[in-house]
Amino acid sequence: MRTYHSVPFSDVTITGDFWRERLDTVLEKTILSQLKKLEESGIRGSIKLPKPVPPLTIPRQPSGFTVQYFWDSDIGKWIEAAAYALSHRHDAAIEAEVEAMIDDLEAAQQPDGYLNCFYTEREPENRWTNLRDNHEMYNAGHLLEGAVAYYHATGRDRFLTIMERYMDHIAATFGRGEGQKRGYPGHQEIELALIRAFHATGKEKFRDLATYFIDERGNTDGVEHYFTQEAKARGADPAKYHFAASGMYEYSQAHIPVRQQTKVVGHAVRAMYMYAAMADLAAEHDDAGLKAACEALWKDATEKRMYVTGGFGPSAHNEGFTKDYDLPNDTAYAETCASVAMVFWAARMLNLDLDGQYADMLELALYNTCLAGLSCDGTHYFYDNKLESDGSHDRWAWHMCPCCTMNVSRLVASVAGYFYGRSEDEIAVHLYGGATATLPVAGGRVTLEETSDYPRDGRVRIAVTPDGARPFTLSLRIPAWCDGAAASLNGEAVEVTTERGYLKIRRDWSAGDVVELDLPLVPGRLYAHPDVTRDAGRVALRRGPLVYCAEQHDNDAPVLRLRLPEDAPLTDRRAPDLLGGTVLIDAPARAEEDGPWAHALYRSRRAPETETTLTAVPYYLWCNRGANPMQVWLLE
Amino acid sequence: MRTYHSVPFSDVTITGDFWRERLDTVLEKTILSQLKKLEESGIRGSIKLPKPVPPLTIPRQPSGFTVQYFWDSDIGKWIEAAAYALSHRHDAAIEAEVEAMIDDLEAAQQPDGYLNCFYTEREPENRWTNLRDNHEMYNAGHLLEGAVAYYHATGRDRFLTIMERYMDHIAATFGRGEGQKRGYPGHQEIELALIRAFHATGKEKFRDLATYFIDERGNTDGVEHYFTQEAKARGADPAKYHFAASGMYEYSQAHIPVRQQTKVVGHAVRAMYMYAAMADLAAEHDDAGLKAACEALWKDATEKRMYVTGGFGPSAHNEGFTKDYDLPNDTAYAETCASVAMVFWAARMLNLDLDGQYADMLELALYNTCLAGLSCDGTHYFYDNKLESDGSHDRWAWHMCPCCTMNVSRLVASVAGYFYGRSEDEIAVHLYGGATATLPVAGGRVTLEETSDYPRDGRVRIAVTPDGARPFTLSLRIPAWCDGAAASLNGEAVEVTTERGYLKIRRDWSAGDVVELDLPLVPGRLYAHPDVTRDAGRVALRRGPLVYCAEQHDNDAPVLRLRLPEDAPLTDRRAPDLLGGTVLIDAPARAEEDGPWAHALYRSRRAPETETTLTAVPYYLWCNRGANPMQVWLLE
Repeated sequence: MRTYHSVPFSDVTITGDFWRERLDTVLEKTILSQLKKLEESGIRGSIKLPKPVPPLTIPRQPSGFTVQYFWDSDIGKWIEAAAYALSHRHDAAIEAEVEAMIDDLEAAQQPDGYLNCFYTEREPENRWTNLRDNHEMYNAGHLLEGAVAYYHATGRDRFLTIMERYMDHIAATFGRGEGQKRGYPGHQEIELALIRAFHATGKEKFRDLATYFIDERGNTDGVEHYFTQEAKARGADPAKYHFAASGMYEYSQAHIPVRQQTKVVGHAVRAMYMYAAMADLAAEHDDAGLKAACEALWKDATEKRMYVTGGFGPSAHNEGFTKDYDLPNDTAYAETCASVAMVFWAARMLNLDLDGQYADMLELALYNTCLAGLSCDGTHYFYDNKLESDGSHDRWAWHMCPCCTMNVSRLVASVAGYFYGRSEDEIAVHLYGGATATLPVAGGRVTLEETSDYPRDGRVRIAVTPDGARPFTLSLRIPAWCDGAAASLNGEAVEVTTERGYLKIRRDWSAGDVVELDLPLVPGRLYAHPDVTRDAGRVALRRGPLVYCAEQHDNDAPVLRLRLPEDAPLTDRRAPDLLGGTVLIDAPARAEEDGPWAHALYRSRRAPETETTLTAVPYYLWCNRGANPMQVWLLE
Repeated sequence: MRTYHSVPFSDVTITGDFWRERLDTVLEKTILSQLKKLEESGIRGSIKLPKPVPPLTIPRQPSGFTVQYFWDSDIGKWIEAAAYALSHRHDAAIEAEVEAMIDDLEAAQQPDGYLNCFYTEREPENRWTNLRDNHEMYNAGHLLEGAVAYYHATGRDRFLTIMERYMDHIAATFGRGEGQKRGYPGHQEIELALIRAFHATGKEKFRDLATYFIDERGNTDGVEHYFTQEAKARGADPAKYHFAASGMYEYSQAHIPVRQQTKVVGHAVRAMYMYAAMADLAAEHDDAGLKAACEALWKDATEKRMYVTGGFGPSAHNEGFTKDYDLPNDTAYAETCASVAMVFWAARMLNLDLDGQYADMLELALYNTCLAGLSCDGTHYFYDNKLESDGSHDRWAWHMCPCCTMNVSRLVASVAGYFYGRSEDEIAVHLYGGATATLPVAGGRVTLEETSDYPRDGRVRIAVTPDGARPFTLSLRIPAWCDGAAASLNGEAVEVTTERGYLKIRRDWSAGDVVELDLPLVPGRLYAHPDVTRDAGRVALRRGPLVYCAEQHDNDAPVLRLRLPEDAPLTDRRAPDLLGGTVLIDAPARAEEDGPWAHALYRSRRAPETETTLTAVPYYLWCNRGANPMQVWLLE
């Protein structure tokens, strides 16, 4: 069923300004600053054995959870991001740091292969007793992803071997065999990590363990739900579960077997990581049932439960989903990690079917909520991504649970991996923005040099240079938001007809061929489904893939009062000196006057409105000039 | 400073249909059904001594609080409501029940006068150790109000004597004297109860204790904050206070002395009860500082922190206030008790100054949020009063903390007490709706027969019958919402000029004089201050004092989608058979069609709109035909 393959980021060179700047920031500032934070916060310290972490470095959350439960995952994620940095350019300091971490992890690994710093240091007797809540497998997954990335970056397999021993331990402990526990992760993530390990090594045991976790999940066929068994074994009351109210085990998508799931529920990051693994396994096993579940969940997520900014999971209570069309703006949670995970899921759906809806979604999440998660200076973050702020919401320099920080750095450091897809005789261009790659196709190799200033400018040039004339299909994504796309081949206009969102040009390609695309980037309006009550009577602005917002910094009238007339023309304006260079949207707008409201809370008529100009910036750039009021959904 | 006096409800006879129906429902159904619920829920059981309450009758709330802490107050409130019923008409069964309760309370009272069933039964050693959280004085206050009401109703003072002993114990325990604790209630209420006891008995010790509580509150002048002292004495960490985050002790308005308070903060019911007592004491002591504080707090509450329905306190977290203009509709808390307490406060402000703004507020809270708290059948309740519902919000048959249920029944049973005010030579008519009273004025007595179908109809007739011709001023409230009010005296038109909201007619009145008022009741629109972001672009409907809402029951289009054009005419329509007879508002409206939204969450244009008719019902009547979607603030 896998008809397409992703092209690894290491085979693609980012040449465009937009991503070059983000990439350099992450490589030069973010990754090293994160290392510093890991050390300051005791996370890095926590994997130094035998010295146990002094209790003071283990802050407790109101829930009583110890942050430490998660911290191995942050080490794994940082190593992964650092490995991507090494793939871009050698850096002895970073490499030495990773090696030192691997030394510590090697020392921390138990004789039986078990490797979890929290349990080993503090509750060795309790390992594998609370998969539902305590993240052992989640940590293992992120460490494994780090090991795979470091192996790709350096060719050295010491860390991967450590993690293989750990995976062997897990595979021996969990399964349907005699004396095994039929458990699976409470926080999914290890599944997709195992598939990456399979792709890196070809060892099917990794894929088989992922398959077991996905197949067993939510299974109550002849067995008691695993999380219930486990709670009883701990002497805990299974019904006394913090998230029971919202549907027992829906929080971790373990309420029913995954193939029966049609609604996206529970913790959004757990959900998205799991869906990504499901898409992987649908391809690996040519599993139509799993693919159908992915498609049903995709439809539900994108048609009923998604913010216009590509954010998922409105509620802080469960860090996740609530009900259809419930998308509050001022209290939006929309965790950065959930959108990063959506990028993973969308990329895997593109390997099942070359369908523009997946690339459109990937682009939306990537350019809006994911990028919003990282500040221009590369050292400040959003964990939750609100769509409206009274000015009190600000970025973090770090977070007690820093999952999002390294999720965005590893994503940006590997963003080149989302530009291209390929099959036997086809190359698909999913994203634009300046990316060069040499890819295998039709028995040979072809170099694509895509140059553009996308998403600031919609003109794209692609020079196609095969190692000899050969026939293949070049499939160019025409975004769904795009009206009036034009294309030419060697100067000759090409009619833009699309198959599932892609313009397909099949011919004998030879060196010197040039395709040009014009994807008109004009400011436009977006309206929400009328059942999204919080957006009723409101309009959002977009230009190309970028959703915009009004920040107080750029507006005279209070942004939460701005009213954009239905017929107001939208003008884009280049602002090369603002926030590293961007494109603003201006529009004539109105705002109600204060005067008549003195000493009145309710009146029988509105106050007169003042004419003003609304200026909007791309959402991902908001809150880079200090906290201030912001609004995505403007009154119309 | 007290220039005006309230007229006790027992001196006023309700003759109008609107209130007669509510009154009969409360007297004939609500009070007896509440007695049954008190018994079923173990609240009535809980004051039977020596038998301790079986633990099973003490449900625990998630907070860990034991509901039992509050339950004496519910007995007190029920006795108060029952006493009002007895004032309306003798009822041997109710009287016998009250006497039996008094027997139990007499038995529960300790030798030193202490009377709290929870502490006496379960933690006698802990009495008076946690005023901040545990409601001992709140319970005492409600029992005292019940005792005063029962004394007025029957002339028998046994209960009042029991409560006087308790108050003597409290006065001996708390104060600034040698060996006394300088404490005050964590949940205010006893202050206004004590003033009622003072008015009933003339005994200044009641007023003096109330004065001490108000004066000492929030005092840190030379002493540590009492709640902090108390926490330390319990061995608790004062900083570990659930509401510390929102400003230490703001939750119970004890953060600073009351005379320095200018913002309404914290728990809304605590706040409103306290402000009512402050207004009482300002009058009792001719205390300009206290009056100024009341006026500042009034301004803040009504100009920045009030729902259009006269509800207060948007947040469930603290059952109270948050920040200016933060008035979410779908999550509105707006506890019924807070609006009942606002009625108390407003009535007391009217005694300080005859100013229509106080009567307007009293009427708004009374006719909207307070009345919404009680169902048409008299046996179902709202604790929180949302202004928008997706259909999931429904009424309670009872509540684990039933404070609101008997607050609304005691209010309706005594509503006649809010119609009139009087001074030496003036009678003020605050409310209309059919109420007859004989009042002392200018050395004699005058009978006023006000007849009207208000608020259904705005035509009011007042027959004035003095016991002999005598000069006095008849002051008729002209509501601020009213445009084009007309008046006549004995058929001759009277120019409607108002002093602070009242039309004042001073003359020698004699039997047969008739004043007629016409207060045009036309449907109108209300808009919220532009900083109330949740209401931006929205409109509310009103007719006279009644705020309206669209319920799904009466509308074809989904009410949360209804859009009311700015120029749509509003028509009122009598519906004599609906919900006991009411007046509806109809208007041509539009609602976005579904079709184009199939499989779309966001689109670049709105869908076409269907023409429809919007029908709105008075807000207080909503959810009397089963739970269903409802909206007060409609899209315009």
